[in-house]
Amino acid sequence: MGSRRMNALTSLKPAGRRRATPPSALSNRRERHRSEIRERIFSSALRLFAEHGYLQTTVEDITEAADVGKGTFFNYFPTKEHVLASYGDERVATVERALEKARAGKEPVMAILKELAVSAAGQSSASPELLRSIFAAHLSSATIRAELQKRMQRFRNLMAEVFVLGQARGEIRRDRSAAEMARMTHIVFMGVTIAWAVNPDSSLQKSAEEVWESISPSFRARKERKERKRS
Amino acid sequence: MGSRRMNALTSLKPAGRRRATPPSALSNRRERHRSEIRERIFSSALRLFAEHGYLQTTVEDITEAADVGKGTFFNYFPTKEHVLASYGDERVATVERALEKARAGKEPVMAILKELAVSAAGQSSASPELLRSIFAAHLSSATIRAELQKRMQRFRNLMAEVFVLGQARGEIRRDRSAAEMARMTHIVFMGVTIAWAVNPDSSLQKSAEEVWESISPSFRARKERKERKRS
Repeated sequence: MGSRRMNALTSLKPAGRRRATPPSALSNRRERHRSEIRERIFSSALRLFAEHGYLQTTVEDITEAADVGKGTFFNYFPTKEHVLASYGDERVATVERALEKARAGKEPVMAILKELAVSAAGQSSASPELLRSIFAAHLSSATIRAELQKRMQRFRNLMAEVFVLGQARGEIRRDRSAAEMARMTHIVFMGVTIAWAVNPDSSLQKSAEEVWESISPSFRARKERKERKRS
Repeated sequence: MGSRRMNALTSLKPAGRRRATPPSALSNRRERHRSEIRERIFSSALRLFAEHGYLQTTVEDITEAADVGKGTFFNYFPTKEHVLASYGDERVATVERALEKARAGKEPVMAILKELAVSAAGQSSASPELLRSIFAAHLSSATIRAELQKRMQRFRNLMAEVFVLGQARGEIRRDRSAAEMARMTHIVFMGVTIAWAVNPDSSLQKSAEEVWESISPSFRARKERKERKRS
């Protein structure tokens, strides 16, 4: 209850209606409830995609697994495709956070890029089954692929901004286009992920780190390359 | 007819039965006929996989498109999966040829590896549709995936042999494992291929070359790296 009150005090929503519980606390509770339901639908959907494939999973399967009514599903996701889009949005969010970090300027840009590349491959929620199901859906449906292409572009644009910051700070070479380096990094880590999804013969994280160690020297500014060699 | 006779002369099959046409020429003609039928079935199958998806294509669809009887299909391919396996075998054959070239020792191993990596990505017969259909089949079926995993391993083992030759000749660094470099190269070019299949926004060949330029310096022996810098 204490934390709810705290939230109520800091809430920006106007209070005033007569209730036992302050309305802002109520709206907070509602918010939390909504986010729990959404999470339940989302994770049930991903589990079913992984188990049976994306195309084979129906909205009914999802609502049944999440124990919610069909109407409830549509309050959160207009279509099944939107669940997939949410998954993609989470990937884009990781590069948004990386860009924020790069802007904050407290860490070397190359360290931020490494973390991004390795964690994008090692997506916390990823299982080979889920990744296979998601890749298969993208390969099989032009509609889903069109959404992916938009997100790929956004992902690469944001990543290119991180590269630009690295160039401005002298960490990353300026004789290569930031957009091209971002595009290449994205392509390469897509390969790491899908190779692992079809053949999970070793740790995804380890593969991703090895690949980063191989490609990252070709991004470094000359001065940085020399210094790293000396040390 | 001239070329058929030439073939007849060079045929190793024993001659002797009384016929207007020498039997070896006949067997040669038969051989050519077989290989034409096989090619017709194979290319019809790939076209249908690209158009409708691998899983959606039946053996009947293939025999109809190739204008052969169903029995004929099974003379060449025991199952539909064997068509896919043939496609995979062709990929493995490219690395076998690369290894032969490397053994011949007339070209730098790094040039052979570059050609292999770029051409593996830029498979002559590849269309984004066909690649999507083939990747989707691998993602969706555990049986097909098991075959792929075997071929991936064979592909990587052969490629590792090429790296070993490069190490022996001082072109490739010896402080990294040949198997690991081969595995990484394979993973990375799988990424190049699939990224292009889902989003063919630029030339596959160009992407592959850019990626090779980025990763290959990390394979070179120190001496080679220095020399390249000087030049």
